[in-house]
Amino acid sequence: MEGYRLDPWASAIRLEYEKLFRYFGIKPFQPLLPEVEKAFGKPHRLMRRGIIFGHRDYEKILEAYRSGERIALVTGFMPSGKFHFGHKMVADQIIYYQKLGFEIFVVIADAEAYAVRRLDRRKIIEIGLYEYVANLIALGLEKNKHTHIYFQTNYETPYYRLIQMFSRRVTLEEMSAIYGDLEPSKIMAALTQAADILHPQLDYFGGFKYVVVPVGADQDPHIRLTRDIAARFENELGLRRPASTYHRFQTGLDGNKMSSSRPEYTIFLTDPVDIAVRKLKRALTGGRATVEEQRRLGGEPEKCTVYEFYLYHLIEDDTQLRKIYEDCRGSRLLCGPDKEYAAELLAKFLEEHQRRLERARDRVLEYVEPPKF
Amino acid sequence: MEGYRLDPWASAIRLEYEKLFRYFGIKPFQPLLPEVEKAFGKPHRLMRRGIIFGHRDYEKILEAYRSGERIALVTGFMPSGKFHFGHKMVADQIIYYQKLGFEIFVVIADAEAYAVRRLDRRKIIEIGLYEYVANLIALGLEKNKHTHIYFQTNYETPYYRLIQMFSRRVTLEEMSAIYGDLEPSKIMAALTQAADILHPQLDYFGGFKYVVVPVGADQDPHIRLTRDIAARFENELGLRRPASTYHRFQTGLDGNKMSSSRPEYTIFLTDPVDIAVRKLKRALTGGRATVEEQRRLGGEPEKCTVYEFYLYHLIEDDTQLRKIYEDCRGSRLLCGPDKEYAAELLAKFLEEHQRRLERARDRVLEYVEPPKF
Repeated sequence: MEGYRLDPWASAIRLEYEKLFRYFGIKPFQPLLPEVEKAFGKPHRLMRRGIIFGHRDYEKILEAYRSGERIALVTGFMPSGKFHFGHKMVADQIIYYQKLGFEIFVVIADAEAYAVRRLDRRKIIEIGLYEYVANLIALGLEKNKHTHIYFQTNYETPYYRLIQMFSRRVTLEEMSAIYGDLEPSKIMAALTQAADILHPQLDYFGGFKYVVVPVGADQDPHIRLTRDIAARFENELGLRRPASTYHRFQTGLDGNKMSSSRPEYTIFLTDPVDIAVRKLKRALTGGRATVEEQRRLGGEPEKCTVYEFYLYHLIEDDTQLRKIYEDCRGSRLLCGPDKEYAAELLAKFLEEHQRRLERARDRVLEYVEPPKF
Repeated sequence: MEGYRLDPWASAIRLEYEKLFRYFGIKPFQPLLPEVEKAFGKPHRLMRRGIIFGHRDYEKILEAYRSGERIALVTGFMPSGKFHFGHKMVADQIIYYQKLGFEIFVVIADAEAYAVRRLDRRKIIEIGLYEYVANLIALGLEKNKHTHIYFQTNYETPYYRLIQMFSRRVTLEEMSAIYGDLEPSKIMAALTQAADILHPQLDYFGGFKYVVVPVGADQDPHIRLTRDIAARFENELGLRRPASTYHRFQTGLDGNKMSSSRPEYTIFLTDPVDIAVRKLKRALTGGRATVEEQRRLGGEPEKCTVYEFYLYHLIEDDTQLRKIYEDCRGSRLLCGPDKEYAAELLAKFLEEHQRRLERARDRVLEYVEPPKF
C-alpha cells in the first residue's frame, strides 16, 4: 500500500482496473515496459506513467516490430464535439506510433455520429474536419502514404463489403449482451467499427499487417467482439485478432468525467488562452481543507486534476514531475503557486498549438476527403 | 362468377389477391391498361393477362413517362440457384422497360445471399455472373449507359452511405413486425435492399428520377418499409417514394411453388431440351380424371401448369392463346396433344436461348464488375 501511495504515476482510480485484469483477460502493461524500450526506445510518457495500463496481445506487436513486419495503428474519433485534452491523449499515441513507422488508420466515425447520436450531418462533417483532423495535424500528424484518415461514410468498397460480410457471423444476442438495447443504427455502428479495426488487413488496403487499437477500458467489450469476428473470418478472409491497449481517462477539472458536454470542466484545444487558464485555476486539486492541514499532511497529487495535466500533457520530464509530486506531498508546493506554474505551461502550449492549428485548418483536405452529403 | 370462369387470363389463385387490394392499399393494375397503352403502346403480355395484377403509384410512372421525365426500373436477383422461368418473367419486365427507355438498375443480392442465406461466397459470385447476368443478356438485355448491373458488395460509396444513414430512421420494432425474428444479417439486408431501391435518385447516380420496382406480392412489406424510409429522408436527401407493381408467381409443374430447390417441378433456362420437355410432359394439367369426363366437362386451363407456360412465356398472341383456352374448356383440345404443342414451343425457345446464352457467358464482364472477394 505504501508503495502505491508513493508512486508518482499512480491515480486514485487505478485500483478499479484490477478487475479488468482479473476477469476480462486484459493484461497489465507495465511489465512490458522493458520490452517496449528495447523495441521502440523510450516508452511514451503515457506508458511510463501507467496511463496506458493494460493490453491484449501487445507482445505480438512488439515481436512484429522487432521482426520488421508491418503494423497498423487504428483509432477513431466521434465527431460530436470540440477537441479536448482527452482527445489529445489519443492523438499523442497516434503520432508516437506514426514516428515509429506504423501505418496509421484514423476513422472519423461520422456514420455513428449521424445514426446513433443523431447529430446534424453537415455539422458532423465540419467538426470532423475542422476540429478533429485539424487538431491532429496541428499536434504533428504527418501526411504520408502510410497515413489514412477517412470518414465512415466516404471510404472504399471493400471496407463496406466487410461490414456486409460480418453481419453473417454475429448474433443479435451477443450484440445485445454488449450494447444493451439495440436499434438498427447501433447494430450498423458496431459492425462498422469492427470493419474500421479489421479492414487494414485486407489485400485491398495493402495486405496483412498486425493491428493495434488504443482504447479506453469502456471500449473493451467492443474489442472483444471485434477479436471474435476476426477469428470467425480467419479462414475465409485471413483476418487475425487485433491487439489493443487500454488507457485511463483524464478526468474533468471537477474530478468527474471530462466531456465536451461539460465545457466548464473541460479544456478544449481551441479555448482562448485566458478562458483555458481561468478553467484551470478553478480546477479541483488534491489540496487539503486548510493551509495548516496541508502543511501538516501534504497535498494529494493523486486526487489533483492539475497534476493530471502534468502527468498526461504538460510535463515530459519524469524527474521534474517526480519533484512536483514530492514537493506537493511534502508541503513544499502549495496549490496556488502550483496552479500558476501549470497555467504558464498550459498557456504556452495553447499559444503554440493554436498558431499551428490556424495553418492546419487550411490543410485538412490534403489529409482526408469529406463525404459530399 | 361466370365472368371470372370465362376469363382466359384468370388463375384459380387470383382471388387471393383481393385482400391485398382491400387491406394493404395495393391498387388493381387492370384499370390502368388504357393509360399504359396510351403511354407505352401495347401493354406487356404480363400486364394484359393480369399476371401483373397490382401496383402502388404507377400512375406517377405513366405521368412521368408522358412528360418525358426520367424513370428508373429497379429490381434484383438473389444469386442462390439456377435461373428458371420465374426469373425469366422478371427479366422480361426489365427488358420491356429498357426498350421503353427506362434507366435500369439490376442488383445481384450477393450480400444477402452470403449473410442471410449463408451460401458460399465464390459460388454466389459465379451464380450471379453465369446464371443471372448471362441469362439476362441472352434474353435481350442491352448494354447501354442507362443500364447498371451491380453486386451489393461491389458498388459505389454513396450507396453504402445510404445504408448507414437509413439505419438512423428505422426501428428494430418495425423491422421485427415485417421480418419476424431478426439477426444482424437480416437487418443489414433490409437496409441494403432499401438502398438498392432508393439510390438511383441520388445526384451521384444521375439525380432525381422516378423509380418503379416490380415485385411479387410477398415483397410488399419491404416495399412499404422502403416507401416509409424514402418519406423519412425526403427533406434531408430529396428521396421520393418508389412506385411498385405486383406480379403473380408462375407455379411449379406440380402446382406448388416454383423454386430452384424443387428442380423436378421447375424448368431452368439451362435445362437440356430433352430434360425440360420431359419435365413439362409430366406437368400437372387441368385435365379431368378420365377422358370421358373431360369430353363432357371440358378441361380447366386455370389449373393447368402447361397453360401457365403459354400465359407467361410461350404464346405472345392473345388470339391464339384465347383459342387454346376455349378449345381446352370446350373439350376440343385434350392434354396429350396440348403438351406436345407446348413442348414444341418450349424446345424451340430453349434451343435459341441456349445458343444466345453461350455467347452471353463471354460477355458478362462487360455488364458487371464482380467483387474480388
